[in-house]
Amino acid sequence: MLKHFIEPDDMTEREYDDLFRLAQAIASDPGEYAHVCDGKILASLFFEPSTRTRMSFDAAMYRLGGQVLHLGDVKVSSMAKGETVRDTLHIVDQYADICAMRHPHAYTQHKAVDVLKNMPLINAGDGDHAHPTQTLADIFTIRKHKGAWSGLKIGFCGDLRYGRAVHSLFQFLNHYDNEFVFISPEGLNMPEEYLDTARCPYEEVDNLKAVIGDLDVLYMTRVQKERFISEDEAKRYEGSYLLNAEVLNAGSDDLIVLHPLPRVDEIDAEIDSDPRALYFEQAQNGMYMRMALILTLLEAKNEGNQ
Amino acid sequence: MLKHFIEPDDMTEREYDDLFRLAQAIASDPGEYAHVCDGKILASLFFEPSTRTRMSFDAAMYRLGGQVLHLGDVKVSSMAKGETVRDTLHIVDQYADICAMRHPHAYTQHKAVDVLKNMPLINAGDGDHAHPTQTLADIFTIRKHKGAWSGLKIGFCGDLRYGRAVHSLFQFLNHYDNEFVFISPEGLNMPEEYLDTARCPYEEVDNLKAVIGDLDVLYMTRVQKERFISEDEAKRYEGSYLLNAEVLNAGSDDLIVLHPLPRVDEIDAEIDSDPRALYFEQAQNGMYMRMALILTLLEAKNEGNQ
Amino acid sequence: MLKHFIEPDDMTEREYDDLFRLAQAIASDPGEYAHVCDGKILASLFFEPSTRTRMSFDAAMYRLGGQVLHLGDVKVSSMAKGETVRDTLHIVDQYADICAMRHPHAYTQHKAVDVLKNMPLINAGDGDHAHPTQTLADIFTIRKHKGAWSGLKIGFCGDLRYGRAVHSLFQFLNHYDNEFVFISPEGLNMPEEYLDTARCPYEEVDNLKAVIGDLDVLYMTRVQKERFISEDEAKRYEGSYLLNAEVLNAGSDDLIVLHPLPRVDEIDAEIDSDPRALYFEQAQNGMYMRMALILTLLEAKNEGNQ
Repeated sequence: MLKHFIEPDDMTEREYDDLFRLAQAIASDPGEYAHVCDGKILASLFFEPSTRTRMSFDAAMYRLGGQVLHLGDVKVSSMAKGETVRDTLHIVDQYADICAMRHPHAYTQHKAVDVLKNMPLINAGDGDHAHPTQTLADIFTIRKHKGAWSGLKIGFCGDLRYGRAVHSLFQFLNHYDNEFVFISPEGLNMPEEYLDTARCPYEEVDNLKAVIGDLDVLYMTRVQKERFISEDEAKRYEGSYLLNAEVLNAGSDDLIVLHPLPRVDEIDAEIDSDPRALYFEQAQNGMYMRMALILTLLEAKNEGNQ
Repeated sequence: MLKHFIEPDDMTEREYDDLFRLAQAIASDPGEYAHVCDGKILASLFFEPSTRTRMSFDAAMYRLGGQVLHLGDVKVSSMAKGETVRDTLHIVDQYADICAMRHPHAYTQHKAVDVLKNMPLINAGDGDHAHPTQTLADIFTIRKHKGAWSGLKIGFCGDLRYGRAVHSLFQFLNHYDNEFVFISPEGLNMPEEYLDTARCPYEEVDNLKAVIGDLDVLYMTRVQKERFISEDEAKRYEGSYLLNAEVLNAGSDDLIVLHPLPRVDEIDAEIDSDPRALYFEQAQNGMYMRMALILTLLEAKNEGNQ
Repeated sequence: MLKHFIEPDDMTEREYDDLFRLAQAIASDPGEYAHVCDGKILASLFFEPSTRTRMSFDAAMYRLGGQVLHLGDVKVSSMAKGETVRDTLHIVDQYADICAMRHPHAYTQHKAVDVLKNMPLINAGDGDHAHPTQTLADIFTIRKHKGAWSGLKIGFCGDLRYGRAVHSLFQFLNHYDNEFVFISPEGLNMPEEYLDTARCPYEEVDNLKAVIGDLDVLYMTRVQKERFISEDEAKRYEGSYLLNAEVLNAGSDDLIVLHPLPRVDEIDAEIDSDPRALYFEQAQNGMYMRMALILTLLEAKNEGNQ
């Protein structure tokens, strides 16, 4: 049985601990890991375009000494000739050793993974459902700066309805003793299906500035303007969901600010140099966690084969 | 003189034997070949988009320890600025050690190859004319499962007119003692120019189920619906050129089924687990044969330089 | 402080001498350099599509044993979601060791480079402003065949207004004792801002054939037809700015002909085999100079870190 990573819940707390420690080891001595994937191939199957996540996986695999096989532009691919995702996976399973896959439709990875005999599959995003390797970037940054994944008050701000990064991070942190504050405009609230599973206490509010002072972690997300349900909402957004120096000043000195990136104007560049702004470091942490994940899944496969 | 591989006839029977044996050796001990192309670069020049064939070459070169230099999207390339294929090849000849080239127009490789001084050229498909490395995938699979390239009754089914994979496999198998059955709808028959060169006995029929019982090898191909000359033809297609469990049951136990992929609906996924369905293994075999081909052409160049 | 290469003037004469000698050493014994960038990553950030320059950088890095991280199609990238160039650079700075960047707008690299903490930046073209690594290809070829970068009469022919390769080569050669002849149709003349800085004597003419006999170096460029200001100009172009065997015959035996490529019809393919036609060799020289540049900038970074 191949071990895949499709949902945050596909790993135990113990496995997350191990992953965090391995990523720390890689970050502190990258040269030690520069050849561990020598001769290995990562298939990069982005059925939906991506720049940042794709490049992060590419960089992760190159820094392990491995190679990356790219699906390329989906509009001109075999899929455009009518090939199913299953058939593509079936073939690539014979070319590569592990794969990272993104798809515009939720749960596509879940439905296609049974065709794989050789490649562990990493979910690099499936529609508005999940984005568990973004969660890896997030939790590395949280633990590095807060020392733990529990005992925290975490604010999620922006588009909580369609933000798959939010959904996956919530799913992870919900296993530990935390408190959540969901800060979003009407119509972009955290979906009921997630709230129903909440083990931690939470509140829903609509103004960032009013609550930022209570937070240990602020997780900002991009809001696509066309998603607002009215002009009024769009105007309120600018006052209630934008992070600039003035709003950040209301936060504590121990606050840390994360963002899955790319950001547009929900975080003003004027705070980039504030030591609490960790979103760029978070991107680098994501690369280290992806390196750790690739190594861990390949190792699990080797052990399974013995 | 560089040795290229542009037509199936560019290699002798002896050379095909050697290639088959080398591919077998690679398949049985890939680790032995993981560094043989260390420092070498394959130029991947797909002037027509491709997913499967391009990825197969990429995987082949990576598994030999080499690198791949991609032409990228042709619509935005130097060719869009008016550069000729000759000039592109002339330049890339100085960047890479070997190249795989596809072009939407037949015989483009034949006309441009004289510009090369350094890179052996592999034809990865030229219009509706030839696709000789697909043939390598096909013949590896046939010999592995049938033990020989002769003494076989081979059925070609589907679009035999525009199917370059069919044309190249026919050209190869026609050198040996075989029998052919061409199964195609009206208007998509095997072109006269190929039939005129037939050394083996052949028949042309229009119904798969009626002949499948006699075949040792069934080579299925994708038919683009818009190529049917009438609604009636399109309807008959579904009854006569589709392979499902019912039709396959009329085949012998020793039959093997090949397909160059991608398949759309001409093969029902219900037969994928039938041991006679070899089209996915065939894709893997194609990778091994491309590895063997790259090695063989680079070696021929080195010997020529000594 | 990172050392970047954004303008031709970013290196001293001494540094250009060193770069030339290093590129010569690489060209004469490439095997010696096949692993010097082992484990290093070049970020290839082409915010404007490019085939030739991108492939030249790719080939350069692969031949040094390094890897290349591609930004990919800009239309579908994070930038399409509204991410700024600054943010993209900030993130990639954490993924790669060095970067080559092209942008459609002039001076973009100059304005964004301050965000970099880790990657030296190489300007691979910024709008119609500069293209200093093309200059490296040019000056390697000139010195190899003429023995020096001074004492030469150099003709620049074609689109001198928008030709960034021309601007950068002029900027370099203007530091030495040379003479310039600018040969261009009306409206595509060398911009005043460059002429104002000329230290070498120059003349402006409008007919190639009339002056070719006096030149040591002829630098041809592509003219986009739509840039002519009148039908008459377009017609005169064909008589005055095209290089064919008849025009070349009026040149001396020691003349060398360069072109940044891709060429369309401003150089007739009939002269490609003339020993004075060096534009294809020039492309190869560009690869060696890019290898030397990557090595030099990475070395400067390492020294800065010690």
